[in-house]
Amino acid sequence: MKQRVYEILEVGDEGDRVSRAVDLFILILIELNVFCVVLVTVQPLNELWGIYFEKFEVFSVSVFSIEYLLRVWSCTANPKYAHPILGRLRFMMSPLGLIDLLAILPFFLMTFLDLRFLRAARLFRLFRVLKFTRYSSVMNTFARVIKAKKEELLTILSLMLLLLLFASALIYFVENESQPDSFSSIPAALWWGVATLTTVGYGDIYPVTGLGKLIASTIAIMGIVLFALPAGIMGSAFLEDLQSRKRQLSVCPHCGNDITLT
Amino acid sequence: MKQRVYEILEVGDEGDRVSRAVDLFILILIELNVFCVVLVTVQPLNELWGIYFEKFEVFSVSVFSIEYLLRVWSCTANPKYAHPILGRLRFMMSPLGLIDLLAILPFFLMTFLDLRFLRAARLFRLFRVLKFTRYSSVMNTFARVIKAKKEELLTILSLMLLLLLFASALIYFVENESQPDSFSSIPAALWWGVATLTTVGYGDIYPVTGLGKLIASTIAIMGIVLFALPAGIMGSAFLEDLQSRKRQLSVCPHCGNDITLT
Amino acid sequence: MKQRVYEILEVGDEGDRVSRAVDLFILILIELNVFCVVLVTVQPLNELWGIYFEKFEVFSVSVFSIEYLLRVWSCTANPKYAHPILGRLRFMMSPLGLIDLLAILPFFLMTFLDLRFLRAARLFRLFRVLKFTRYSSVMNTFARVIKAKKEELLTILSLMLLLLLFASALIYFVENESQPDSFSSIPAALWWGVATLTTVGYGDIYPVTGLGKLIASTIAIMGIVLFALPAGIMGSAFLEDLQSRKRQLSVCPHCGNDITLT
Amino acid sequence: MKQRVYEILEVGDEGDRVSRAVDLFILILIELNVFCVVLVTVQPLNELWGIYFEKFEVFSVSVFSIEYLLRVWSCTANPKYAHPILGRLRFMMSPLGLIDLLAILPFFLMTFLDLRFLRAARLFRLFRVLKFTRYSSVMNTFARVIKAKKEELLTILSLMLLLLLFASALIYFVENESQPDSFSSIPAALWWGVATLTTVGYGDIYPVTGLGKLIASTIAIMGIVLFALPAGIMGSAFLEDLQSRKRQLSVCPHCGNDITLT
Repeated sequence: MKQRVYEILEVGDEGDRVSRAVDLFILILIELNVFCVVLVTVQPLNELWGIYFEKFEVFSVSVFSIEYLLRVWSCTANPKYAHPILGRLRFMMSPLGLIDLLAILPFFLMTFLDLRFLRAARLFRLFRVLKFTRYSSVMNTFARVIKAKKEELLTILSLMLLLLLFASALIYFVENESQPDSFSSIPAALWWGVATLTTVGYGDIYPVTGLGKLIASTIAIMGIVLFALPAGIMGSAFLEDLQSRKRQLSVCPHCGNDITLT
Repeated sequence: MKQRVYEILEVGDEGDRVSRAVDLFILILIELNVFCVVLVTVQPLNELWGIYFEKFEVFSVSVFSIEYLLRVWSCTANPKYAHPILGRLRFMMSPLGLIDLLAILPFFLMTFLDLRFLRAARLFRLFRVLKFTRYSSVMNTFARVIKAKKEELLTILSLMLLLLLFASALIYFVENESQPDSFSSIPAALWWGVATLTTVGYGDIYPVTGLGKLIASTIAIMGIVLFALPAGIMGSAFLEDLQSRKRQLSVCPHCGNDITLT
Repeated sequence: MKQRVYEILEVGDEGDRVSRAVDLFILILIELNVFCVVLVTVQPLNELWGIYFEKFEVFSVSVFSIEYLLRVWSCTANPKYAHPILGRLRFMMSPLGLIDLLAILPFFLMTFLDLRFLRAARLFRLFRVLKFTRYSSVMNTFARVIKAKKEELLTILSLMLLLLLFASALIYFVENESQPDSFSSIPAALWWGVATLTTVGYGDIYPVTGLGKLIASTIAIMGIVLFALPAGIMGSAFLEDLQSRKRQLSVCPHCGNDITLT
Repeated sequence: MKQRVYEILEVGDEGDRVSRAVDLFILILIELNVFCVVLVTVQPLNELWGIYFEKFEVFSVSVFSIEYLLRVWSCTANPKYAHPILGRLRFMMSPLGLIDLLAILPFFLMTFLDLRFLRAARLFRLFRVLKFTRYSSVMNTFARVIKAKKEELLTILSLMLLLLLFASALIYFVENESQPDSFSSIPAALWWGVATLTTVGYGDIYPVTGLGKLIASTIAIMGIVLFALPAGIMGSAFLEDLQSRKRQLSVCPHCGNDITLT
C-alpha cells in the first residue's frame, strides 16, 4: 500500500489515472492559492469574501499537510530514501521536501504563535507557488542555464555594479547643488542610476543641469550596451541548453554512416 | 467561367493582368478601410466627413460581400473544395474563409440587429486588416516561428509571470503602508511590475521607501535579463526560418548522395 | 594640371601630403559647420556671436562652392566621367555629386529668393554632414546591411505596424471614456502605442482603467519581443558583413594547404 | 627579504597563507572604502559618524601608502623592473602603479594644499575601486572585448551620433514654437534625443504637436534598432572571448599538425 501511495503522489504516467487525477487536483489547488493571495489584498473583495478566503486557506493547508505527511510516510518506497528514519529525514531536507514544508509551516507558526497580525506573514503563502517545481522543468532549465554561464554573468554583473556606482557618484556630485532633495546622497543617486541604466526611467528623478545631462547621456548610452549583455548571454545559453537536449547522432539515410550535426 | 473567376480572385501571376488588377484593387480597399477606422475616431474629421465615411463603409462592405460570394461560388474550381456543398462549407470554415466572413458579418449584424450604438462594434472593422493575410507571407512566417520555439517561449513566459508575481507581491507588502493609494493591492502592484520589468516606466507608480527602491532595483536588473530572452530566441528562430527557405541540398560526405538539412 | 586637382580632391594616399591636407581641411570644416548649426540655435550664443556664425557660413559656402566647381571641372580625369559634358552631368547626378550640391544650393536659393525668414531652411545646413560619406565607410556598411536583410526587416516592420495599430485601437476603445482628452482618437492612442512598444514610456499618456491596464500589460510584454527582433537581425547582419570583409582563405602553417575557416 | 615582501604583496598562491591574508585584508579595505565614500554623503550618517569616517580615511590612506611604498621598494624582485631606479620608475608609470598612486595622492594633495573645501575632491576616493583590477580579470576581459570589436563599435557609434543629431535637430525645428522652454535649442533637444533613443524616457521633455509626435515615433522605432546593435555585438564578442580561453588545440585535416584556432 505504501508503494501505491508513493506512486500516486509522484508525477504519474499517462496510464495511471488516479495518480494523474491527484497531480491535477494539487496543481489546481496551488493555482487557486496563488489567486487567493493576490485577490485577498484587494480591499473590497476581502471585505466581501474574506471569510471564504480564510476557509479556503484552512482547507488548502489541510490538504497540503496530509499530502506532506503522506509523502514523508511513503518516501521510503524510493530506494534513495529507503531507511525508515534517516531516509525520511533526508527527504525532509531535500529541496522538494523543504518546499512542501514551507507551504504549510507559516500557517501553523502564525496560528500557534499568534502572529496573525504580521501582514508580511501572508507573503509566505506565495512560496506555495514553488510547489510547481515538482511538476515543471522550468526551474531546472533556468538553474542549469545560470550555472552554465555563471562566470560570464558574474563578470558582467561586476561591471554593471561598477558602472552603476561611478555613474551615481558622478551625478551626485554634479546635481547635488541644484537638486539637494532628489540627489541628496549617493544612495539616492543610485536609484537614479538603476532607473537610467535599466532604461526604466520613471521620471521621478533626473538631472537638470547642463553638465548633469551631458554625463547622464554618456552613461545612458554606455549603459544600454552593458545592461543588455546578460540578456544576450542568457539567450544563447538557453538555446544551447534546449538544443543539447534534442541533439542526437544523425545517420545518412543513404549509406548509414554518422553525420552528426553540430 | 467559374474557373476564370477563381483565377482572378486568387493571387495572380505576373502575366494575368486582370487578376493582378483585382488583387491591387482589394489591397487598396483594405488599406483605405484601415485608414477610415483610424480617422473616423478623430472628432473634427468625423463631424466634417462622417457622412462620407459611412458611404465608404457601405461601398466597402458591398465589394467585400460580392468578393465573398464569388469566392464561395468559385471555390469548387479548387480540387481541395471540389464538392459543390461540402467543399463550399469547408472553404467557409477555412481560416481565410472565416476572415473574409468576419470582414462583412459585423456590418450586417449591426445593421439588422440595430447594434449601431455599440461603439466597440466599430473595432471589428479593424479585423479587415487580416484580409492582408492572403497576400502576404508575414503571418505565416510569424506563426511558424512561434510554433518552432513554442517550448522555449512557454518556459520563459512561465518564468516571467513568476518573477512578475513575486516582484509585485514583494513591492506591495513593502510600499502599501507609505502609498496606500498607488500600491493598494497586489493586482495594482502588478501594473507597476509590468511597467518596470518591460522597462516602459511610465512614472505613474514607483516605490518611494528605501527598502522598496532597493527591492525594485534588484528586480529591475533581474527583469531586463529575463524579459529580453524571448527577443533573443525569436530573433534566432526568425533567422533560421528565413535561411531554411533559402538553403539548398547538401551532400553526404561518405557516399555523395543528397541529404537536405532541415 | 586637371589630373593633379582631381588627385588632390579625391581621398588621398598616405604619401600624398597635399591631398591629405585638403581632406583634413574639408573634414574639419564639415565638423565646424555641424557644430555651428547646433550652437546657433542657443539663443544667448546667437545673440553674442550671431555675426560670426553668419560670416563663417559665408566662408563655408564659398569653400564648398569652390570645391564643388573644381570637382565638376576635374571629374573628367576619372575614366567613368571622361566625356566633357555628359561625364560632368553624370557626375553631378551621382549620389556624391548631389550631396555636394545640396551642401551649397540652399544657401544660394535662400539668398537670391529672399527665403531667409524660413527658419526650417537652416535645417538644410545639417545635410552637409552627409559630405562625410565620401570619407567614411559607415554609410556604405549600413546601406549594405539594410539591403542584405531587407526581406526580414520588412516582414517584422509589417508585424510591428499591425501590432501597433491593433494595440492602439484596442486601448482607444477601452480608455476613451475615462480619459477623453488623452485617448481622444486612434491617432492619439498610436502615440501611446509607440511610447509603450518601444518601451520609451514618457508617462504623458497611459491607461488608468483596470481593463486598460490589463490590455496594456499584455501588449507591452508581446511588444518587447516583437520590437526587439530587428535589433537581433541587424546585429547578426552587421557581424556577418564585417566578418565577410575580413575573411580570406587561410593556409595551414605546416603543409600549406587551404583550410578556409567559415 | 625583499623577495618575500614582493611575494606577499603580489596575488598569492593557494599555499602561501600570509600572502593570501594580505590580499584579503587589502580587498576588504578597498570595499570598506567604497562603502564609506557612499555612506559619507548621507547627511544623517555623516553627522553621526563623520569623525569615524575621517579616522577610517586616515587609516586607509596610511595602509595604502605603506602598501605603495613597499611595492615600489620590492618591485625590483620582478625581472621586468629589475633596475634599481629606472625599474622602479617604470613600475610607478605602469597602469597598476598609477592606480595605486591615484588611491593616495588626492588625500595628500588636499591635506597639504588645503583643498578640503573642494567637494568634488572626495569623488577621487572612488578611484580606489580601481585597485580591484589587480585581483580581478573583469577589466581585462572588458578591455579585450572592446578592442576586438573596436571597428564595429566605432562604426555604430558614428551612426548613433548621426541619428541622434538629425533627430534632435528635426524635433527642435518642429517643436520649438509650441514649447520654446523645453525645446529651446538643438543642445536641449539632444537631451530629448538621448532619452528617447536609449528608451529611458524620463518624461521631462517630449513632443506635443502632431507632426512632432509623428517624427518622434519614426525616430523611436528606428532608434531601438540602432541603439540595440552594440549590445548584440558586445554580447557575441564576450562569448567569443570566453570561449577562446577554453578552446583547445585543433589539428589540420591535411597533415595532422596542430593549428590552434585563435
